[in-house]
Amino acid sequence: MFFRNNRWITVASLVLVLFMATSVRCLAADGSSIEDVQKYDRAIQIMAMLLVGFGFLMAFLRKYGRSALTATFLLVSAALPLYMLLDSAGIFGSATPLEIDRFVLAEFAGASLLICAGACLGRLKMYHYIVLALLFVPVYMLNEWIVLENGLGLIKLGSVVDTGGSIVIHAFGALFGLGIVLAMTNKKEPAALIESDYTSDRFSMLGSMVLWVFWPGFCAALVAPDQVAYTAVNVVFALCGSTLATYLGTVALRRKISISDIANASLAGGVAIGATCLFANHPTAFIIGILAGTLSTFGFAVMQSRLERTFKFIDTCGVTNLHGWPGLLGGIAAVFVVRGIDAGSQFAGIGITILMALVPGFVVGRIMLAMSGIRKHYDDSVEIIVATENV
Amino acid sequence: MFFRNNRWITVASLVLVLFMATSVRCLAADGSSIEDVQKYDRAIQIMAMLLVGFGFLMAFLRKYGRSALTATFLLVSAALPLYMLLDSAGIFGSATPLEIDRFVLAEFAGASLLICAGACLGRLKMYHYIVLALLFVPVYMLNEWIVLENGLGLIKLGSVVDTGGSIVIHAFGALFGLGIVLAMTNKKEPAALIESDYTSDRFSMLGSMVLWVFWPGFCAALVAPDQVAYTAVNVVFALCGSTLATYLGTVALRRKISISDIANASLAGGVAIGATCLFANHPTAFIIGILAGTLSTFGFAVMQSRLERTFKFIDTCGVTNLHGWPGLLGGIAAVFVVRGIDAGSQFAGIGITILMALVPGFVVGRIMLAMSGIRKHYDDSVEIIVATENV
Amino acid sequence: MFFRNNRWITVASLVLVLFMATSVRCLAADGSSIEDVQKYDRAIQIMAMLLVGFGFLMAFLRKYGRSALTATFLLVSAALPLYMLLDSAGIFGSATPLEIDRFVLAEFAGASLLICAGACLGRLKMYHYIVLALLFVPVYMLNEWIVLENGLGLIKLGSVVDTGGSIVIHAFGALFGLGIVLAMTNKKEPAALIESDYTSDRFSMLGSMVLWVFWPGFCAALVAPDQVAYTAVNVVFALCGSTLATYLGTVALRRKISISDIANASLAGGVAIGATCLFANHPTAFIIGILAGTLSTFGFAVMQSRLERTFKFIDTCGVTNLHGWPGLLGGIAAVFVVRGIDAGSQFAGIGITILMALVPGFVVGRIMLAMSGIRKHYDDSVEIIVATENV
Repeated sequence: MFFRNNRWITVASLVLVLFMATSVRCLAADGSSIEDVQKYDRAIQIMAMLLVGFGFLMAFLRKYGRSALTATFLLVSAALPLYMLLDSAGIFGSATPLEIDRFVLAEFAGASLLICAGACLGRLKMYHYIVLALLFVPVYMLNEWIVLENGLGLIKLGSVVDTGGSIVIHAFGALFGLGIVLAMTNKKEPAALIESDYTSDRFSMLGSMVLWVFWPGFCAALVAPDQVAYTAVNVVFALCGSTLATYLGTVALRRKISISDIANASLAGGVAIGATCLFANHPTAFIIGILAGTLSTFGFAVMQSRLERTFKFIDTCGVTNLHGWPGLLGGIAAVFVVRGIDAGSQFAGIGITILMALVPGFVVGRIMLAMSGIRKHYDDSVEIIVATENV
Repeated sequence: MFFRNNRWITVASLVLVLFMATSVRCLAADGSSIEDVQKYDRAIQIMAMLLVGFGFLMAFLRKYGRSALTATFLLVSAALPLYMLLDSAGIFGSATPLEIDRFVLAEFAGASLLICAGACLGRLKMYHYIVLALLFVPVYMLNEWIVLENGLGLIKLGSVVDTGGSIVIHAFGALFGLGIVLAMTNKKEPAALIESDYTSDRFSMLGSMVLWVFWPGFCAALVAPDQVAYTAVNVVFALCGSTLATYLGTVALRRKISISDIANASLAGGVAIGATCLFANHPTAFIIGILAGTLSTFGFAVMQSRLERTFKFIDTCGVTNLHGWPGLLGGIAAVFVVRGIDAGSQFAGIGITILMALVPGFVVGRIMLAMSGIRKHYDDSVEIIVATENV
Repeated sequence: MFFRNNRWITVASLVLVLFMATSVRCLAADGSSIEDVQKYDRAIQIMAMLLVGFGFLMAFLRKYGRSALTATFLLVSAALPLYMLLDSAGIFGSATPLEIDRFVLAEFAGASLLICAGACLGRLKMYHYIVLALLFVPVYMLNEWIVLENGLGLIKLGSVVDTGGSIVIHAFGALFGLGIVLAMTNKKEPAALIESDYTSDRFSMLGSMVLWVFWPGFCAALVAPDQVAYTAVNVVFALCGSTLATYLGTVALRRKISISDIANASLAGGVAIGATCLFANHPTAFIIGILAGTLSTFGFAVMQSRLERTFKFIDTCGVTNLHGWPGLLGGIAAVFVVRGIDAGSQFAGIGITILMALVPGFVVGRIMLAMSGIRKHYDDSVEIIVATENV
């Protein structure tokens, strides 16, 4: 009953965000330098990915474009201040010393959240997206702390290789989303409504291209200045590989090109190269991209419908295929690519991430289910003012 | 009669621009350094805001998208060379010493001009936009000189706090536009034609998101390298605040979400934080954003229709709500936020800007009225070749 | 017969790309420095031009938008690794020493390829675009080597002035495309199908604006840090000039505005200033822009239909008007603008480029003709899954 009262939830959520954000410690600008300025540019490139990239990629739904874009705005606006508050409060480990680094880490959390939201897109009320952000970010940070920063003392500091976040950003977000939809999918739900049209296809390709273009900045955001170019070229090679593989794959598996495969699976190389973008050589990056693009296309064209029938869930944007399996592939690839890697730690990091995503995701899904009661799925008119002649 | 002859006006305007632009002094590249390169990147980010950001935000009109984008091209292409000529000629104070700084200042003028044009969008002939640029830029520069550079000796140099241009860029542009539409609005004009559809809504959200993403670069364009990151994060906090507040506000005031509110008022935090982006701490920036988003949403949902009926004007894009009131709010907020600020100078700067915008704006509006005689408002087909089946 | 078997061609092409790409030598990241990071930012700006800019500019076709965007993805994904392989193998001259420089040069090749593909857009099967990339890039590199790097000892090193690629990128790509369509155009082909609608017009303006915004980064990509700002401002002046001239020209020649002229010819200033962007002063840059915009608009409005009737070809995107004639204009302008230029070498460079583009282009066109047999032109449904209600 309480959960169904959207006004109170909305107000309460916002007050919470407000309260928390206003507590962010004011960091001095001391210690910033010319090096931060070059990081700043990549931080803005990531911002373009979050809003324009993810936003328009998720606007592929025929009748839900306005809502998808609004949700993107809300998810990002709730996640960034929340991450920066919790980080500066030092709740999970010590606070990040450098302002710009903290901001980039907050953007990473925002990316992971947007991936997660893609799984249940179109089936949440607008204020639920804010609630989702508030629930997701702390769990994301907990996993980040455990896997990368020796939180709880489980994994040695720096022994998990994941520069561009294949594991802790992409796979985590996708599996958290999978957990949610496993918990909340109504068995009678018509997946048939998840459809695009010619205009929404082009908007979706816009989002995809913006993600492709700025992905090198995402992976190279925090690497040392003299490694930025090398890392960026690796990411481009991986994306070229996955794009070509996606074309081949979609024609081979469907006889014709699915524009949804092109818009999504072309990016799988970026997802998979994340873990090893600093260590792979260019040919290896290209091959990882080809493998990831193939896997992702196979996921969209073949696996998804089978998995959805078997496990009774609906993954609106297919984030498991784009971010889930390729993210895990990338994390595992590091074992073969990076010299001197501690394979045990790498697999432990992957395993912990899977658990930390699926289980809390399932719980959050149950909360979402309890709050729901949306009349029509994948339809702007539920919450947005829509002139009748334009529906 | 003369004013109605569009060929002559067009040719004359262009010759004027040509003449002036060809007189721009050739600045040596001396004195440029690695620091200019980092400024260059933000200059390009601002360029993306001018064309893609403002252009597509103004393309929300159902039948006037092509014209809005063409007008954006023309406004920017006339304003940038004109500003750089007048600045390098030292007409208002001494010439800006550094090439890249001058370019960024020219972009600021372009942004203010685009804001101004938003007020009368859809009611000018295409060549009027060029005339508008030629009339607007000198007045803008005069105000900039008086308020920020001790022109006429009215305000002490550096005593007005307006790093990101809440006052001299946003409020000035919006109030100049208000002056224009107060002078030129025909009493029988049907505001009902100002409507969007599903596709134009999504293009408009694209423009909004591009503005959101690059706003930190706008505010931090000319700050010292070691303050760029801090300033940028402040702007992001303000934008997060206004985005969340806009969602709450639009639902509270309209019961459903107006996508136009989301696309516009979400940006009010960027407008309002301009004045204090270098001085506020993050929680304060967030609060300024919330206040600005609330004020702007209230402007769109409640105030605009009342003001328009009372004062007989039509503000096509609602620039008073997005740039006008939030810009003034930001300028006033500086009095409370910035330590050691000279409140008298700050208010004097705001007051002078209001006068310098409204009065010349009104005069320009009369000129526009004298030149007009457009058959249909908000309609591409007046001046653009439109295939009949696509109308 | 063999050429008509698309599966084999597709697989073979991809295997070839794979083989070559996997042979790219792994460059050490040694020698990279803070200077490379500032180059990296411009490299990403060029990437945005390649995918979002060229992609959406080519998406102006009413029914071929999805295909144009997919083709853009494939062209770029095949060209970049191929260039980097051939360069690092030192096939044409010695390998580029710096990683980021090589990447930017590969992007230049990608830009030239996209220009070339614009001429025959909508008349190739999807895998033909990959074949085109594989055939185009080596010829492009051969010309680059001969004209700019004293390949074959024909032209003295550094005596051809072409910083931003008016000659070797724009004119080369356009004339190669012209060669192709001279060879492959079917005499009965209905050019009438090359039409846009309101939504595709707006997507096309998006591509145009993205190109405009990042063009300064394209021209300044490899100049010394202290010349980046000056070069960038020159490019902006040229673009402002061509944009204003295009408006004047389209109204003068057509009585109303053609949005296709605006989207294309506005960019001609960027094409033409390429050769002299480092040497011209700002007024000269503005004048070069005006001349280029006028020439390009005249090309679209008057010359194209006459040339197409006379020489029996169809240039889908009008790349000859945007990149061909303005590119040659820019190359010739250098003779008058750059002090101490060796006019003989400059004209030799232009002449060689024309030959190296037209003749191999014609041969490639014959190959494309032999492989073709496409049922419907300019239509997504030939190869892309299109829901019937959305056609």
